[in-house]
Order: sequence, then structure tokens, then C-alpha cells
Amino acid sequence: MLNNNNKKIYLKVLNIFKKYNLNLAHSKICASAIINAELVGATSHGLSRVKMYCDRIKKKLINPKPKIKIKKISQSISHIDANNSIGFVSADLGIKEVIKNAKKTGIGIVGIKNSGHYGLSSFYAEQAVKKGLVIFCFTNAPPALAPYGAKKSFFGTNPICFGSPVGNSTPFILDTSVSLINRGKIRLAAKTGKKISKGSALDKHGKPTVDPFKALKGVQLPISGFKGSGLAWMVDILSGVMTGANHGNKVKDPFDDFSGPQNIGHLFIALKHNLFVSNYTKRIKENIKNVKKLPKVKGVTEILYPGQNRMKKYNLNMKKNIKIPKSISDDLNNL
Amino acid sequence: MLNNNNKKIYLKVLNIFKKYNLNLAHSKICASAIINAELVGATSHGLSRVKMYCDRIKKKLINPKPKIKIKKISQSISHIDANNSIGFVSADLGIKEVIKNAKKTGIGIVGIKNSGHYGLSSFYAEQAVKKGLVIFCFTNAPPALAPYGAKKSFFGTNPICFGSPVGNSTPFILDTSVSLINRGKIRLAAKTGKKISKGSALDKHGKPTVDPFKALKGVQLPISGFKGSGLAWMVDILSGVMTGANHGNKVKDPFDDFSGPQNIGHLFIALKHNLFVSNYTKRIKENIKNVKKLPKVKGVTEILYPGQNRMKKYNLNMKKNIKIPKSISDDLNNL
Repeated sequence: MLNNNNKKIYLKVLNIFKKYNLNLAHSKICASAIINAELVGATSHGLSRVKMYCDRIKKKLINPKPKIKIKKISQSISHIDANNSIGFVSADLGIKEVIKNAKKTGIGIVGIKNSGHYGLSSFYAEQAVKKGLVIFCFTNAPPALAPYGAKKSFFGTNPICFGSPVGNSTPFILDTSVSLINRGKIRLAAKTGKKISKGSALDKHGKPTVDPFKALKGVQLPISGFKGSGLAWMVDILSGVMTGANHGNKVKDPFDDFSGPQNIGHLFIALKHNLFVSNYTKRIKENIKNVKKLPKVKGVTEILYPGQNRMKKYNLNMKKNIKIPKSISDDLNNL
Repeated sequence: MLNNNNKKIYLKVLNIFKKYNLNLAHSKICASAIINAELVGATSHGLSRVKMYCDRIKKKLINPKPKIKIKKISQSISHIDANNSIGFVSADLGIKEVIKNAKKTGIGIVGIKNSGHYGLSSFYAEQAVKKGLVIFCFTNAPPALAPYGAKKSFFGTNPICFGSPVGNSTPFILDTSVSLINRGKIRLAAKTGKKISKGSALDKHGKPTVDPFKALKGVQLPISGFKGSGLAWMVDILSGVMTGANHGNKVKDPFDDFSGPQNIGHLFIALKHNLFVSNYTKRIKENIKNVKKLPKVKGVTEILYPGQNRMKKYNLNMKKNIKIPKSISDDLNNL
């Protein structure tokens, strides 16, 4: 349950989306995703983006009243044309569809085209994991990352998100971009006047920079050179090439490219956790327990698995009031 | 077609496996996989491993006459108990099964337990790609990598392998370990008296080392800290926890742990490439063409996609005689 302050912020966001012509159900989906991002500490995917979404609705690049079509290819496979809906709405529909498919047949796959930026992959992965599914969520994103060997950005930071239930414990949810720094973080640094970490980006001339404005015009570097570059390419193929969405440098930047809808693509693959073994929960718990028993490097008191840190932040932040930087608060009041 | 010299080596390997009680069909599968590794330049997964496989057969840790069971869960889903077969044989069966499933229903998934080290994931991915499938191949491996925050190895170098057809062009096949250096390369360096690259491994006391022998007793470092560690964990969950195989630090090292069979697990997921769009080939070719047109960093004349370099090496090596270091040649003659 949100506290009164945070509930107010949630309602404020909900009402902004309603004002921008989304229906109540869709506005709720958007506001929930945005508040969730704030609560898990991913502020770069939270309130700082509301203005961008509204700008794109105003410019008719996001369709507030989309006619989303679900094409059922088999009991396991669905293809969604999101009709340029806001990303939250199509991803919410997509994750529910893949859950349904996997629950029925053991494995589900859903490809989505004509969508937009959907926030955090972990938000959707969590929904599938709660239903006992192991899940992959892939999405592409606007150019930010230079392929290995190139000095111009082409791929998005293209996250790989993988989730698994861990019985009644915090779910295992890995949600990692394949860039050394994510674009939202650079944008937030620009908005709040901070520097970015050394070695994570180049300016437009190919020189290392810690200036977020220069980095936004330059390129971000992939993790581990050819490996990270290959993983970004994989995500682009899965979510863009395969689904019929834009891919590569055709994906439009939501903040500064108003030449058309983003047409981002997503791909969700879900599997029943106990597809092959009946004691999956016992097995994954044992796996985690064995990791936690390992000798630790200096300064580490507990080895956390992916998702644990996010959940810790969430539980902590649920007790606190969401802090809104002045520039973002002004944006919200103006909307 | 192999040249006469290489054909002789192939037959030599085939006959070794026959001598170690594998039937002709299984010996052919093993010899093909090993010669392929040599030809694509992955010598760490080639002839240098033959002795290890034979040692394990002799010690009854690999079953040369396995009774492999395929449990059909649905038309899309199969579970294989490999009965401690040599990894090549179970993976070959697994990839054929997942191809069959995906060809029939659009999506296939096969989990394999009680298997062993199967060589290069790309070898199997290629088979699926040739049948028009997009494919994931996951396998776990013996402890080599320290989870982020730990100073003892737990995960294998756990490769992520993803493949896609590219029409008549070289297939896109990413086959990347999530460690900064793979274990086979360290082992080969040890065998041939070379050093390993700086910053890629720690000795058993947690200190950086370039000595391959010390690295083998210490830990390898994951790519990009928490991210690489999370990806290794994901692969362990998919191929070990899910399939019923050993996982985490329970996976036995094939070279120096003779306390029982390895019980490695593999997971293959295959999708029809044209599941959602009929012009997939045109789309992926366009994607690749656009990457190749990007301005390049100094010294790079062509940006290669994953799989291209491997294919170039293969085509080049097909015209050459496979070179065998003396120590390995002695091993083969003794077997």
C-alpha cells in the first residue's frame, strides 16, 4: 500500500495521463509502472519521463486510444500490433498474453510491434514470475550503443531481462542493459547537473567524456566489447527484426525525434518453472543458498542475487516519500 | 570436404572413440564436433580434449553405450535424460529434437540432464539455423567464475549462444562466454606454456595472475561485474536448475574431478524465424547492411557480425592442414 504522499503522486500521474486522453485502465497501468520505477530506485525510468510521454501524445506520435490487435498464431504463440500505444499498455497486454499462453501449454511467446518505450523490463517480468513462470523480456531501444568496431551509435542499450520464481522468497530478476551505463542514467545526470562515470561513453568525435550532454550526442560503450555488442545485436534481432518493429538505427529517440512513432518491439518468452522437474523451487533455493555461503571479497557482507537489491530498495522506499527534483516537479505541474 | 590430412585426423579421432566403445554413429558425431572446433579456430575445444573424454570413459564416468530417454511433454517440449552419455551425443540428439519440435509447432524447447561437456554451442546452433530456426543454446559448466561479491568460483563460464539465419549468407551466431577469458583458453595456455591476459583471472588467494596454472586453481572474472555474474547465474538456472542436471558448484570438472559423472545440463529453445513476419530475411539483411555502413574506428575495415569471423576462419582452415602441438599428438597416439 502506497503511503498518502506517494498515493497523491500516483494519482497526479494517473490524472495527467487521463487528461492526455488515455482511458482510466490505461492511465492506471502507466501510473503504476512509473511509480514502481521510482520505488525500485530507477528514477531514470520514472517521473522524469512523464513529460516525454505527454509530448509524444500531443504530437500524435503515441496513440492514446490505440486499437491493439492480438493475432493468435497457436495456443503458445501470439503476435500483437500495438497500434502505437504507449509502451506500458502494450507491454502490460503482452505480458498477460504470454502468461496465459505459457500457463496453458507450458511455453508462451509473444512478439509486439508498433509499441513504444515501456519503462523497466523487470516490472513485467515480475508479473510472470508471480504466476510461476520463468520469463525472458526483450525490448529494443533508440540508438545509443556503437557496434564493436563502429564509432557511431546504432543499437539501443537493449536490456536482457530474465526472471524466475524462488518459492516465497524475492524473485530472481536480472534486468541488465548491455551498455556500461544506461541512457536513462545519462539523461538524469544531464537533468540534475551531474557527471557520468569515466570510460562509459564517448562524445560525438569518439573521445571519452564524463559530460552527460556530450555523451547523449556521442555513443555509449557496450560491456566487454564484442560480447556486449553481440548481445545488443541479439536483442535487436529478437525484439525488432523478428516482431516487425523498427530495428537498429531506425528506432526513434522518444525525447528528440518527432518524425514519427517509435515503433519499438518487444519479445516475451515464458516457461512453466516446473516444466522438467517437480522440485524446481527446492533446487533454485539450494543454488542460491550455496552462493550465499561462498567466501566474500572484502567489504561484502552478503552476496545478493539479481532482484534482491531492487526488492530491498522497494521495501525501503515504500516507507518513504518519493522525492521529486524541482525541474521534474515543475514539468508535472505544467502538464 | 576435408583435405586428406584433416580427413586422416578425423578418422584417427573416430577410431579412438570406437576403441573406447562408442558405436560408429556416436563416434562420428564426436569426431565431427572436435574437428569442427579445430577448423573454426577454437582449438581449446578440439583435439586437446580427446584424452579427457577417453579418461572419463575408462573411469566409467562417461557411458559409451548410453540408453538415452526422450520424454515428450508436448509437441513443442521434450526432456532428455542422457544417461551420462558423452556431451556431443546428447547435444546432437537434443538439437535434432528441438528442430523437430519447432518445425512442427513454431517453437521448440528441449531440456537435457545427465549430459557432459558438449564442445562448442555454435556447432549445434548452426544445425538449427540451417533449418531456418532462431535458436538459443544454453549449457552450464564446471565452476570457474566467482559470483559478484565472492572470491571463490561457483558458476561455469556458461556461454550464451544465439543464432539466426541470414538467408544464404553466413548465419548470425553469437557464442559468448560470460567470463573475460574462457577456461579452455587458460587450459590451452597451460598446455602450451603461454601466459593469459592481464585482469582476466585471480589466483586462489584472490590476487590477479597471468599464470594459467594459478588461474586454473583460482577464479576467472565475469564480464562487467554484476552483469556478467547475473548472466552466468541465468544460464545455470536455465540449463542446470530447470533441467534436473547438476548446477552451481556441483557440476564436476571433467579434467580433475573423477568422483562421478559431470551431469551437465543443456537447454535449447528454437523459434521459426518467420513466426511473426514473412520478410524476416530481408529485414535481418537490411539490419546487417546498416551496421556495415557505419563509420569505423581506426584500424577496422569491416564490421563483422557474430559468426562471420568463425566462418572466415573455417573457410581458411579448410584449405590448410590442422596443426597439432606435440603434447596433444602424443596423447592421441597413446590412446
